[in-house]
Amino acid sequence: MVALYGWHSVKAALENPQRHIRRLLATENAGRRLAEDGVSQVPEIVRPDVIEALTGTEAVHQGLYAEADPLPSPDIEEVAGSGMILALDQITDPHNVGAILRSAAAFAAKAVVTTARHSPEATGVLAKAASGALEYVPIVTVGNLSRALDVLKEHFTLLVGLDSEAHRDLAATALSEPLALVVGAEGKGLRHLTRSHCDVLARLTLPGRIKSLNVSNATAIALHIAATKLAAAA
Amino acid sequence: MVALYGWHSVKAALENPQRHIRRLLATENAGRRLAEDGVSQVPEIVRPDVIEALTGTEAVHQGLYAEADPLPSPDIEEVAGSGMILALDQITDPHNVGAILRSAAAFAAKAVVTTARHSPEATGVLAKAASGALEYVPIVTVGNLSRALDVLKEHFTLLVGLDSEAHRDLAATALSEPLALVVGAEGKGLRHLTRSHCDVLARLTLPGRIKSLNVSNATAIALHIAATKLAAAA
Repeated sequence: MVALYGWHSVKAALENPQRHIRRLLATENAGRRLAEDGVSQVPEIVRPDVIEALTGTEAVHQGLYAEADPLPSPDIEEVAGSGMILALDQITDPHNVGAILRSAAAFAAKAVVTTARHSPEATGVLAKAASGALEYVPIVTVGNLSRALDVLKEHFTLLVGLDSEAHRDLAATALSEPLALVVGAEGKGLRHLTRSHCDVLARLTLPGRIKSLNVSNATAIALHIAATKLAAAA
Repeated sequence: MVALYGWHSVKAALENPQRHIRRLLATENAGRRLAEDGVSQVPEIVRPDVIEALTGTEAVHQGLYAEADPLPSPDIEEVAGSGMILALDQITDPHNVGAILRSAAAFAAKAVVTTARHSPEATGVLAKAASGALEYVPIVTVGNLSRALDVLKEHFTLLVGLDSEAHRDLAATALSEPLALVVGAEGKGLRHLTRSHCDVLARLTLPGRIKSLNVSNATAIALHIAATKLAAAA
């Protein structure tokens, strides 16, 4: 079960024909807004504190809460062979993963491959930070990232690992589709085996005194650079 | 008083001669690591739960906690007239502001201008997310952003507002120093008065199904684009 809350994440889920919603709660205001927006599904109208009891008081639920089945996770073979894929090597923080999914959807990534499995609680945080992106970008959850990268390689994918220590600048690197950007966790970076699977390692050029970015910020810049280069090459 | 915790934020504060530390707590491990790193200030060695009682159990304090005086906030006149400045229009979330400060330091922004005043509690979260950037980028806190933008204008600054609805693409916009990037809060965007002060409004090109990014992600991409353009023009 996946708990979704917040306007964008619940609205996008309601509009996704693949998403099976089991339960939908809304405050009176949010319910009216849903109806005005042409959403046909009728929510159970509740007081805000009923939703708060489910999400915790920290969550910005905006009067909307849904319980849904998880979306099917496609096999790596199904998404390999074209477009831009983002692979996350043990990135676990749900705020970061959510923001990354949002950026992946904004830059039209074909899929996000991840090794992380999130608890239902973390999934709510992740979905909120993703702002609807869960419905737009297929998430391929794998046990073994190296094996998934091998499959991408068999489909002629250029594997580019982001590495703050790399000599090569991503902005000066020739990129072509199918492409996979591979990103590691903050502090740890890419694991040795992941790194050895990449065709190219590249860094972002940071001219200032801080030499590493928040992982979602770094990923957003990498997606921007890659999307710009691929569009120019097309 | 500012509460700082986490390795990068406390270490950077200890190394900043401008920062007056009033109290420094460390676990045995963290204290040893500080000494090994050549930090001369001797911490009070405590058990992890003493730090947790101060930061809350959610905080990733990594065995380090400091109480310090806030750094002096320079006047807008002191930072105007050269380089790249980032102006934040009512962005309040401390995680986002912290990540933005970190990116601003990484892209060698000269200062960050902000309208937001944070509680001591929020400042701890912000400092942790900034990962030391508080010590590297001067923060100019202003009551009236439009007036600050006027001062930048008097110093011949090109004011570029980020706006997801703008026709112009930031990547295709001519940029020159002194430059100020002006960024609004997620959802709300730039306030009307802020917008009317900008010389140019520009968007990021997002080819995918999601048309807006997390504000720290959007700001990171804008900083990358601007820093790249300014370096090429120099």
